[in-house]
This record gives sequence, C-alpha cells and structure tokens, in this order.
Amino acid sequence: MDSLHGMNFVAGSLQKSPRSFTASSPLDGRELPGRFSIASLADVEAAMLAAAPAAAVFAATGGEVRATLLETIAAGLMELGDALIERAVAETALPPARLVGERARTCGQLQLFAAAARDGSWVDARIDRRQPDRQPLPRPDLRRLKRPLGPVVVFGSSNFPLAFSVAGGDTASALCTGNPVVVKAHRAHPGTSELVAGVILRAVESCGLPPGTFSLLHGEGSVIGTALVRHPACRAVGFTGSRAAGRALCDVAAARPDPIPVFAEMSSLNPVFVLPGALAARPAEIAKAFVASMTLGVGQFCTKPGLVFAVESGDLAGFRTAVAEAIAAAAPGSMLSPDILAAFESGRDTMLNVAGTAVLGKAAAAADPTRTQAAGLVAVTDGATFLARERLAEEVFGPWSLVVVVKSPADLRTMARHLDGQLTATIHGTPEDLAAAGDLLELLGQKAGRLIVNGFPTGVEVCHAMQHGGPWPATSDSRFTSVGTAAIERFIRPVCYQDVPDALLPAALQDANPLGIERIVEGVRGRQ
Amino acid sequence: MDSLHGMNFVAGSLQKSPRSFTASSPLDGRELPGRFSIASLADVEAAMLAAAPAAAVFAATGGEVRATLLETIAAGLMELGDALIERAVAETALPPARLVGERARTCGQLQLFAAAARDGSWVDARIDRRQPDRQPLPRPDLRRLKRPLGPVVVFGSSNFPLAFSVAGGDTASALCTGNPVVVKAHRAHPGTSELVAGVILRAVESCGLPPGTFSLLHGEGSVIGTALVRHPACRAVGFTGSRAAGRALCDVAAARPDPIPVFAEMSSLNPVFVLPGALAARPAEIAKAFVASMTLGVGQFCTKPGLVFAVESGDLAGFRTAVAEAIAAAAPGSMLSPDILAAFESGRDTMLNVAGTAVLGKAAAAADPTRTQAAGLVAVTDGATFLARERLAEEVFGPWSLVVVVKSPADLRTMARHLDGQLTATIHGTPEDLAAAGDLLELLGQKAGRLIVNGFPTGVEVCHAMQHGGPWPATSDSRFTSVGTAAIERFIRPVCYQDVPDALLPAALQDANPLGIERIVEGVRGRQ
Repeated sequence: MDSLHGMNFVAGSLQKSPRSFTASSPLDGRELPGRFSIASLADVEAAMLAAAPAAAVFAATGGEVRATLLETIAAGLMELGDALIERAVAETALPPARLVGERARTCGQLQLFAAAARDGSWVDARIDRRQPDRQPLPRPDLRRLKRPLGPVVVFGSSNFPLAFSVAGGDTASALCTGNPVVVKAHRAHPGTSELVAGVILRAVESCGLPPGTFSLLHGEGSVIGTALVRHPACRAVGFTGSRAAGRALCDVAAARPDPIPVFAEMSSLNPVFVLPGALAARPAEIAKAFVASMTLGVGQFCTKPGLVFAVESGDLAGFRTAVAEAIAAAAPGSMLSPDILAAFESGRDTMLNVAGTAVLGKAAAAADPTRTQAAGLVAVTDGATFLARERLAEEVFGPWSLVVVVKSPADLRTMARHLDGQLTATIHGTPEDLAAAGDLLELLGQKAGRLIVNGFPTGVEVCHAMQHGGPWPATSDSRFTSVGTAAIERFIRPVCYQDVPDALLPAALQDANPLGIERIVEGVRGRQ
Repeated sequence: MDSLHGMNFVAGSLQKSPRSFTASSPLDGRELPGRFSIASLADVEAAMLAAAPAAAVFAATGGEVRATLLETIAAGLMELGDALIERAVAETALPPARLVGERARTCGQLQLFAAAARDGSWVDARIDRRQPDRQPLPRPDLRRLKRPLGPVVVFGSSNFPLAFSVAGGDTASALCTGNPVVVKAHRAHPGTSELVAGVILRAVESCGLPPGTFSLLHGEGSVIGTALVRHPACRAVGFTGSRAAGRALCDVAAARPDPIPVFAEMSSLNPVFVLPGALAARPAEIAKAFVASMTLGVGQFCTKPGLVFAVESGDLAGFRTAVAEAIAAAAPGSMLSPDILAAFESGRDTMLNVAGTAVLGKAAAAADPTRTQAAGLVAVTDGATFLARERLAEEVFGPWSLVVVVKSPADLRTMARHLDGQLTATIHGTPEDLAAAGDLLELLGQKAGRLIVNGFPTGVEVCHAMQHGGPWPATSDSRFTSVGTAAIERFIRPVCYQDVPDALLPAALQDANPLGIERIVEGVRGRQ
C-alpha cells in the first residue's frame, strides 16, 4: 500500500506532476497513503496522441490477442489479492465481502468478453456475393464486418470501484473489440485505480501491444475529463455517474467539430408499482425486500428503487408499517465520500421540504458523521403532489425512497405516463393483478430498459439478455447497454468491402471463413 | 396532376394554411401545377401529438400488419403509374428512366423491409433462463427484445425524390419496426411528396392504423424541421442532405432537455486512389469510368467520387488526357433546383480560385442556364496544395471532381491519413499494386464506411452487407447505416423482461416461440 506511486499512466510511462491530491477514508476521515498527481493537459495530449496510432495496431490484432489481454487482466486483478480489496474498502467504505463479490463480477465480465473476443462472431460478418448476371446491372461482391471505433475515453464510476471503473464493463467492452482506452480515474478511489491500472499496463506489455493502448489519468472531470472528450483522437466515451456530469460530457461531445458518441449512464428512479392484490397478499414481504433493495450498498446503486407507487386501500396501512419497521431497523452505513454524503443529505432535505411530503420511516440509529454515514429514510406523498412537483421525480443518490400513494389502479397508469426514462421499472402483482393491470407493463416498456415482475431492480446480471440502459435521462442513448455482451456494440462500426480480392479481405470475411465465425451469407446465418 | 391539393397531411387530415409556395421545373423554369401550404407550428404540434399515442398502438401491432402496410405502400407507388414519374421528372429534372429505376428500388426496399417485418427476427430476441440453484444467488429469468423508439422525423432528400424521400429508406426502416413517421417534405419536389404521402395515408387507413402513424408537412427546414426535432414527442431523426443542415439538426437534437439520436447523412468526397500499375495498365478505362461516375445524375449522388489521388509518373499524362476527353464529351445536365445549381457554381469557383488548382478538363458544351444546367468540370492540384488548403477537402455537390497528383505511392497514405470521414473510399490497382500498397486499405477502413476495389462508389446496393454511413462528416453516427437491412437498427432499442410470466411476455419472448423467429437462447442461436 505504501508503494503507491501516485503517478499518471501515460501510454506506458508513469508521469508525475506538481499538483497532487490525497485520498481519505470515508470510514474514519483518515488520510490514506499515496499522493496522486493531477494530470496536466500535456498528459492528456500525450495519452491521446499515443492512443491514435495504437488504435490501428490494436485493431489489426486477432481475437486471441485480445482474449489473452482480458484474461491476463482478470488474472492480475486476482493476483493483487487482499491489497486490492483493502485499499478499495479504505477508499470507498464498501464492505470487504461486497468488494470480493464485485471483483468476481469484474473478472467474470473480463472473461466473458475474452470469450467473445476469441469467438470473434461479434464482427457481425455479412456476405452478399457477386451476381454477375443480375439485370439491369450485375451486383458487386459486398461483405461487411464491424471494426473498432478507435480510442475510447472511460470515466471511472464512484459506486462500483471495480466493476464500473478502471477495468470495468466499459474498458472490457472497448478492449474486447480492439479500441485503446484512456481512463479518467474517479477521484474517490485513486489508489484502487492505480492498482488496477498497473495490472492493465503489465497485461498490455505482456501481450506486446503498443503503449498507447492504455492510459489512466487522475484529475477533475471538468478539466481533464472535458479535455479528453474534446481531443480529436477520442472516438467514443463511456461514462457512469451523475446526470449533471453526464449531460456536460454529452454537450462537450456534441459541440466538437466532429461530434462523437457518448454512452452516459446517469439517473434513474427505478419505480416500483405495487398492485392491490400483491399489497393485500404480502405487504410485509414486499416492504422488507423493498427496504433491503433501497438500502443495499447504502442506496448507492444506479438501480436503487427510489419510487414506490401503491393504491390507497385498507391494506396499505400494513405495508406502511412494515416499511417503517424495516427502515427503522436498517443500520446507517458509510457512503462513498463526504461529497456524496453531503449531496444525499441535501437532496433528501430538499424533498422533505416539498409541501405534501412526510417521513414514512427512518433508521432508528443515528448516522455517525465522522464515519461519513447516512441513515436510510423513506418518505411518503400522494399522487397529486407527485405530479405537481417535478422535483420529486429527481434521483437522490443514497438510502432515500419515496412512496407515492394514489387513489385508484388507473392512477398507476397516469404515474407511469408521467415518468422520465428509467433504467428499470418493477411491478409487484398477483396473477389477477397483472391481468387487470392492462397496459401498465407496456407503458413501462416505453419508459424503461428493464422490466421486473415481483422482484427488485438491484442486481444486474452480466449475460446476453441484459439491458442496462434506458431513455434519457437514464442513459444518453437507449439503443445501447453498458452491461452484458451487447455492451460491445457501443464501440464498433460497420465497414463494407466491395469487390475486394479475397486475400486482401479481413479474415472474418474471406471465403473460406478461416476464423470459423458465425456469419450471414446471402441472408442465411451459419458458420459456413 | 391538376388534382394536387397542396395541403399538409396532419395525422390523417389534410390541412391548408394561408402561406403557400409553388414548385417550378428546373427543366424550363416554368411554374408547375399545385400550390403547397406551408405548415404552421400548430400543424407540427398536431402531427407530433397524434404520433405519440399512435406509437403505442403501432408498437403493439404484429409483423404481418407492418409487412402489409409496407407492401401496400409499394403497390400504391406502382399504381400511381406515369403520373408519379412525370411529376418527379418535372420537379427534379432527373430523367424518366432514372426515376423508373429509382421507383423500382424504392418498392424493392419497401418489400425487403416488409419481409423483415414479417419474419420478425429483427427484434434480436435473447433468452437467459432462470438458474434457481446458482450460487451465491439464483439467476432470474431474463429475456430481451428490441422495440420501436417512437415517432421518427424524416427529412426528404432532394437528390433521390423517391428512394430517400417520403417513402424512402428512413420511412421504410421506421415503419418496419413500428415507429410512426412525420416527414418534412423537401421543398424541391412537393408534388411528388404529396403523391407519395397520399399512398402512405391510404395504406395507413386500409391497415386500420391510427392516423398519427403518418404525417407530412411542407415548410422550411429551419422553421418546421427544427420545430419537429425539438418536439418532446420526437424520438429520433433521419436526414439526408447538406453538412450545414445536418449539423444544425444534430445541434438542435443535442440541445433538447432530452437529447435524441439523429442519423444524418451529410457530406462525402468518396476519394479514389489510383495506384501506379492500374494507371499504367488501363488509364483510359479508369478515366472514362471515373467521369461517368462523377457526372452520373449530374454529380448529385452522395457517393460521387469528388477526389482522385494519383502518383506523378510517365503514365499520368495518358490518364489526364483521357479524363479531359471524357469530361469534354459529357453533356451538361439540369440540376435539381436553381439553388443547388447556384451552390454548385459557387463551390466550383471557390475551388478554382485556390492558388495551385487548375482546370484539367470541362464539358465542351455550354450549360443552358434557362434549363438549370451544370457543366461538368475536373480540376487538378498537387498533394502539397491539397494538404495546405482545407477548403479543397470540402464537398461540392454536382459534377465537380478534383484530381490530386502526388509524388510517390507513400504520399497516397499521407493523403488517406489527412482525410475526414467518408461514405466510401476506392482503390484502383493491379494485384501487384494492391500487394505493394501496404496498409492503404486499412487506413481507408479507418475513414470510410465502404471500401471499393477497382470499381466506383456510385451505386449503393440494398442488401444485408451494405454499409451506407461513415465517420463524421459523412454521417452523424458511423455505427449505423441508412441503406440495407441493418438500417432498421437506427430506430429500435432493447428492453429486458425479468421474471415476467410467460403469458405477459411479448410473443417474441414466450417460451413456445409462437412467432417462430430466430432467437439466442442461453447464448445459442436458433428458431427453437
């Protein structure tokens, strides 16, 4: 731990700068070992200028090299052992067990993308062969594959210091498909970032890839992050964070002489609709699971259920009581940083100051400010107030949620129509409830990227069918996902080869299919 | 023809407005029958407000309905018979045979998308089933499909009044996948637009779809077009036109409270690299084919080769002579509109005023200004001048092209690196040339969406393997195409269903696969 060098990783070399910062632990406010250099604009320039030529070399590598790179990174993360977990605990206050799980998820993700790289079918090869006799004109030979976009700038996220940070899903997606990565490290976990970056640097070296394949810079998003996104060599951006920061990056990217795509995952309330039958049948069970989900990780999940809609009825009292009991029993927890705690408290208090909202329940134990703790709180309001006060539909990051009591099941559809874009939306209902709910599921499908029945949204599987992305402001482009195998689609683009001689075609498009990948030939899919 | 009503198609009703305009024929300047209402902002509001609820109804239709809709439109276009072709000829000055071919292409495109709608596999269904025994936590049941984004605003293009206009590729892509369409008609062919819109209106009615499924408005892009893109109900934009107009729409979309995706196809020089062996072997053949391609449709193709790079050598003189002869023999042609002709002449003259450029050859016959004619011209410059003068790398829409003579084959790679994003890039070379060209093909793959060997870029096949889209400024998002079956991917987004009971799932995701579509189940593709 004392061996943290604090330098920026600039295309294979370590760079120190005069300005620096230290990390302190949210667990006790203590300053942690390590003094981290704040990257200069010269570092930005050097990283991006090295990434541009590295892109061509990296794009030309085969799937085996990329698979080995990703596997080497996964192995390297495990080899860091307890040192990584201990530093991450100290920097983020997340419990060791959670971070061990997150490391497993991160490594699993790297291995899944390694498998995708090795298989190679992600290039979506399509072949429409020459038709020399077609009338009125012959058809040329046309073959299409997807290739990397070029250097991707990735912003480390605070709340998943491993799975959505330096070697997280954005980096894995970009490397899998042959794009160099320049990471803007999150300020709240610089030591964890350095440890992971060291692993990636060594993996890049051991795979014989150009140094520009990977860089990591410390610094402010508004300075270093913005400069990275503005740089001519930057071809795409992956970001997970606040709505304000995501919007700022989207605006910077859109204002470039050549706008580039940004996938920003930003803000979601993850509404939960509790239908009358479910409310009557299992009020305590739903209440407990809801509070467990909203307080998981001290409410610092992007899929935290921040809104619950329920219909006024005789059964509601039991649900309210059970929620109040569950949140009272929820222990306060340390948040990721004092800034995040301050934003939570301010957001929560702003909500409670809205006329028509009241506290439904809160943690019985007091939060310890010296440990950056937040205490959970669930508020309650009515449907009319919710519709009238736009502020109530804003995300409060942390253990906060709002129960909205409406008058009738029909009002639930009104609420659904009123919502902004969401990562997820959930319905709790009996089979009869669901049958009677009409188009509620469809309405939510218009608003959210993932629909859940009788579950809770926290917990995002890494698999083929996952969608982690929804209409604005959940993400900046609902057509893509940042979790699951489809996440790689953000950083690739198609190129068509017309009448190119077989020997000059990329292997994926050659007649003999030397890579043995899945392709669409004359509209028919197969490995022929 | 006299029966043109000139009204706007506002969600099933025809709306007249006090302000109007007429069309005149570029062939002779005569005013054409019909007086067209300029849509009001109230028309914009009415069209978009009807599109929003229509989106939900249309999204819920099956593939059969959408296929029938597209086929009915194709049949309706054919039923318009000569009236459509005659009006299009009069409005655009494109030759009848070209427009008959374009109509066939448009209908073929509609039928191809009808087949895609009927097959239904475009939803990219993925199923990862529940794993109740997984440790440490069970995996929920996760199923994903793609669904329509919602109302799409389509801008008719001037240069393909059928294939890239009211019922063109953007409209077909959007309707195929269940998105309502609001078309901003191009001002240069309002009568053609009205005839086609009438066909779509009747097809929407005969399929029992809500009137908000389709609207068409006449008016200025800077007023009506901008208002459509700004409207909260607009979910995506398809555009083909100038770089300035495309950029303006991208900026409007990016500045919305909720930015939306724009697919704008804008500007491309479609560079052609003639390698030394090819230059020596077939100078006259390449020269003739090049001039034929650059003057095709009076140079009004987005894939017109506007740049040719060749290496100084003893063989170059023959090529230059052949180009000069071919362009001298090229008959002047009527452009699409006086505005477009004026822009062509101004752009051409600006280029010729750049020190270091000279006329290589031009059409022997004079252009007739009363017939809106442009005469073809090929200019020549050297590599150093091209690199020094950014203006020379701007598109001039019309029969203009620039031959850039460089000193060595290595300079060709320098030129390739210097280029902006392109729709296409072409290499002419013998097998020996191509082998010696090193990474030229790869360099061009970094810049363009389609690479052509020993051909010319005009002629864009509608097939699976086509890519019509490249890095900025060729298009606004190189990850998508506006031609070919993949064009539908612009207007759909994934939604994941977690633990949703089978009966409530969309048919595409139900266990029994009642639609019989291709799906990815547990990572394995098939129709099971």
